[in-house]
This record gives sequence, structure tokens and C-alpha cells, in this order.
Amino acid sequence: MSAPLTLAQFLQQSTEQVEAAFTRIFPEQWPVQQRLRDSMEYSLFAGGKRIRPALLFAAVESLGKTHEHAVAAACAIEMIHTYSLIHDDLPAMDDDDMRRGKPTNHIVYGEAMAILAGDGLLTHAFYVLSTAASVGKASTEATLAAVAELAKLAGIGGMVSGQAADIMGEQGVTSLEQLIAIHREKTGALIAGSLKIGGLLGGANARQLAALDQFGYKIGLAFQIQDDVLDLTGTTEKLGKPQKSDEKSQKVTYPYFLGIEGSRLEIERLTDEAKQLILQAGFVKPQRLMEIADYLLNRDR
Amino acid sequence: MSAPLTLAQFLQQSTEQVEAAFTRIFPEQWPVQQRLRDSMEYSLFAGGKRIRPALLFAAVESLGKTHEHAVAAACAIEMIHTYSLIHDDLPAMDDDDMRRGKPTNHIVYGEAMAILAGDGLLTHAFYVLSTAASVGKASTEATLAAVAELAKLAGIGGMVSGQAADIMGEQGVTSLEQLIAIHREKTGALIAGSLKIGGLLGGANARQLAALDQFGYKIGLAFQIQDDVLDLTGTTEKLGKPQKSDEKSQKVTYPYFLGIEGSRLEIERLTDEAKQLILQAGFVKPQRLMEIADYLLNRDR
Repeated sequence: MSAPLTLAQFLQQSTEQVEAAFTRIFPEQWPVQQRLRDSMEYSLFAGGKRIRPALLFAAVESLGKTHEHAVAAACAIEMIHTYSLIHDDLPAMDDDDMRRGKPTNHIVYGEAMAILAGDGLLTHAFYVLSTAASVGKASTEATLAAVAELAKLAGIGGMVSGQAADIMGEQGVTSLEQLIAIHREKTGALIAGSLKIGGLLGGANARQLAALDQFGYKIGLAFQIQDDVLDLTGTTEKLGKPQKSDEKSQKVTYPYFLGIEGSRLEIERLTDEAKQLILQAGFVKPQRLMEIADYLLNRDR
Repeated sequence: MSAPLTLAQFLQQSTEQVEAAFTRIFPEQWPVQQRLRDSMEYSLFAGGKRIRPALLFAAVESLGKTHEHAVAAACAIEMIHTYSLIHDDLPAMDDDDMRRGKPTNHIVYGEAMAILAGDGLLTHAFYVLSTAASVGKASTEATLAAVAELAKLAGIGGMVSGQAADIMGEQGVTSLEQLIAIHREKTGALIAGSLKIGGLLGGANARQLAALDQFGYKIGLAFQIQDDVLDLTGTTEKLGKPQKSDEKSQKVTYPYFLGIEGSRLEIERLTDEAKQLILQAGFVKPQRLMEIADYLLNRDR
């Protein structure tokens, strides 16, 4: 047995596994329209941090299983995340021209193709996940449960509802509770989903699944608050978008309610609570989840 | 045992089963944003003909099984069809203000919410289908295979690719072959998908699945040609959209290549071929599939 990977090695390995698999997600016999494929690949390889795949792999590891159980699922989660960014950036939604230092999908491929690239990534994520059982080591039952979990948390039981609430709320988010509720669904749900799907494929028991779920929502919220703080304090270069873009678009953020120092304390509190939940749920190898929680706490982009 | 239903009774029953199930697809505990839900329901209940659920039920019947095996799957197919119409109607796509005699989703709810309603329906279709095994009579294996089939044919292995080809082709479809290829994916794939998913849930063998697949693509093509013919010959009242709207938007259609009489002959030829395929594949009750093929051949809206 080789020495355990450092966190940096683990994150790099996760990214490499997912990106290698992305080059194989288009089945050769399928009539995939070429420009559609280009548009999907453009956003899949646009420099994402691959945090959701890393969380999914960490959940699998925490149960003593290896990554092969979960590469397809990690791809599916990242495809869903990518589609959500493409649709969020559309002129009718946030109308963003740049993301991660590159022109957004609709700027390069046009609005119609960007809508279809999002639809294609969303739909194909379910193909990749549902056929994982036949190529990997996950059982049919666990795979079907993972499909249902992804559809719930990426859809109207999570992300899509959060996005809708965000749109409606732009006409006036007036309380911290309202802001937390929106981000719980908009960002937290898919992060919790990454962890729960890792748990399902790794054979977690009910108590462990509940812990992964709550861990996910807590670090998801911490992640979002950190985003807001970085928007105020980071540099354009590191963020890949203009600094203080939230402030300019008059978006209500956590620092607006809590101040920057208050926001930082809240991030630490949530991270600590999240880690405690995992440590109490009887995982054989909880260490990687702890490391990632700390890593997200200390990130600068 | 009661007397078999007439086709009219069967179609009405199919519609009623799907529409009753649509009122139960939003799980009570989920934080579904209210306007998102309104927007999704608006299009789900906008007077669709429910042809895909009827085909799915007919495939199940052809194998001697009852509808309970497949109500969730029929809902999933119709939700996918509905999402595709919402996104197709968007200003960046076909820019249609009216459908089936009613304002399109984005006219009523705005463009951003229409995009999200489509995303929500697409994602939730996979929730409804993937949880069907726990509420119905289908096996886990058949359900997971149905998820994969739906993701393929509704996605980049079918409908989404067809839509992308249609967009690209608008800059010049110059041959009948090109037009057939686009419609094969854009319309045919989801119709074939309805039949194959019915086959999978009803326990079809490989030969029967292949017959359902080819039957689906043939009647799907016939259906599309009929749409083009009706656009030229039907009335605005029956169509729910202005007559000759294709001609006005300079859309290339089958009658453009084949003439109206040639198109009608092609519809008959495809329908006959489709029926023969089913009759040769050893179904215990092929009758309903025959009736629906004839019904589609003779429809006037």
C-alpha cells in the first residue's frame, strides 16, 4: 500500500480523473451535433475548481472505498454544476459576459446554443450517472438512489428552486434568514448532493448519509459567504471576474448583514460544526473530509 | 375482465392518468419556489395532446402489462416534452409568443423563469422516473435502464442534438436527407424513447425493443411530416397557431421537397412500415400500437 496522498495531490488527482473521463463522455456512435459538443466542452474545460467531484471522492474515501466507485458520478455532478453556470450567465438571468477570466458560453456560441449546451449537460449527466453501475463497482440500487438524489437536489428540491427564489428575491431580500434560505438551495443543495451521492455509492448507513447531508449544507453556506467576502477583498486576477462585482450590481450579500469580520467568524463557526458532525458519525476515514473543509475555509479564490 | 377500451377511451384514460399524477409530482416537504411551480404547472396543463404517454402505455399494453407499471414514466416523458417546448419557444430560440392557443411560458412568467421552469421539468422528470420503482411494479434494473434511455434520447443522443442541428441548419437546409436527419433526432428520438421505455418497463425482449425503436422513429417522422402538411392545410383554430406559420418564417418543410400529395403518400408509407415491424416482433397485444399509428396518420391537429 502506498503512502496516503497529501490534500494537494488528492485535489489534483480528483481533477485529473474527472477531466480524463470528460474526454470520454460523448459515446462514439451518437449523432452529437458538432457545435453543441464544442459548446459543452468549452464550459466543461473552462477552468473549474472541481470542488464538487473532490467532495464526492472524499465521501467515498471516508467509507474506505476507492475512487473507481465514483468517477462517473463525479463527472455527472460537475456537468450539472457546469450547466447551472451556463444558464445563470444568460442575458435573461445574471447577464454575465465573463467567468473565470474567459468569455461566458453565450458570448462565444450565442444564446440559443448556450441554452442547448446547458440542457445537454444536464440531461447527459443523468446518462453518465445511470450507466455508472454497468462500468463501475456500484450496485444498481445505489446507482438508482443516486439518480433520485441528484434529480432532487439539482432540481426543484434544491438548486433550481434556489435560483428561482434568487430571481424573485432580487426584488427585495430584506433579511439574513431569507438570504440563507436562498443560498441553502442555490449552492448548498448540490454540494450536499455531491457528498450524499458519494455516500450512497460508498455504502454509507442512514446516520452517515444524514451527517454528509448536514456537513454539505454547512460547508456550502460557508463557501457562499466566503465567495461574498472574496468579492469584496480579493483581486480581479484571482477571482476571474471584476472585484466588488456584487456591490456594483447591488446584490445583497452576507457582509451586508454581518460585516466582513462577522462573515469570517460565521465561516469558521459553520466549518467547525460541519467537521464535528462527520467526526461523530463513525466514518472509517474521515480525514479527507476534514482537510477539504479547512481548505475551503482558507481559500483565496 | 371488462371489455377492452376503444381507442378514444384509451386516449382519454391515458390523459387522465397522467394529469392526475401531475397534481402529485411536487413532494410536499420540498422547498419548491411558488412562482417556479406555477410556471411549471402552467405548461404541464397547457392542453398537450399527451401522445407520448399514450405511446408509452400502448407499448406496455402490447406486452400484456397494465398501466400501473408506467404512469410515473409516462409523466416523466411528458415533462421532458413540455420542457423542450418551453425552451424552444424562448426568444433566443424560435421566439414564439403563442402555443396551443395560449401565451407561451416566457410571455406569462418572463424569460428567466421560463428557462428555470424548463430546467426544473427536465431535472424533475428524472426524479419521477427514478423513484418509479419504489412506487410501481417495475424492477430496479428496468427502471435504471429506462433512466439511461431517456437521458440518451432526450439529450445529446437525440432531441437536444436535433435541436442544435435545427438551429445550425436554419442557415441553410438544402436537402431532404438533411431535413429527415434533423427531425429524426428532434422529434423522433423522444417518440422512440416513449415506446422503448414502455418496452423496458413492460419486460420486452431485445427484438421487441428494436421493433419499438424503429416503429417510434417511423411514426415520429410521419408525425412531423403531418405537422408540416397541417401547417399548410389546417385552420388556425384547430392548430392553436397561425396557419402557414412555417411558410411565413421561411422554414424548410417536407411539402417544400415532396409537395402536399407526396408528403401524404410518405406518411402512409412510413405508417405501414411501422405497423409491419410491430406485427413481426411477437407482441401478445399489438393492437393498440396499430390503432395509434392509424390515429396519428388521420389526425387533423
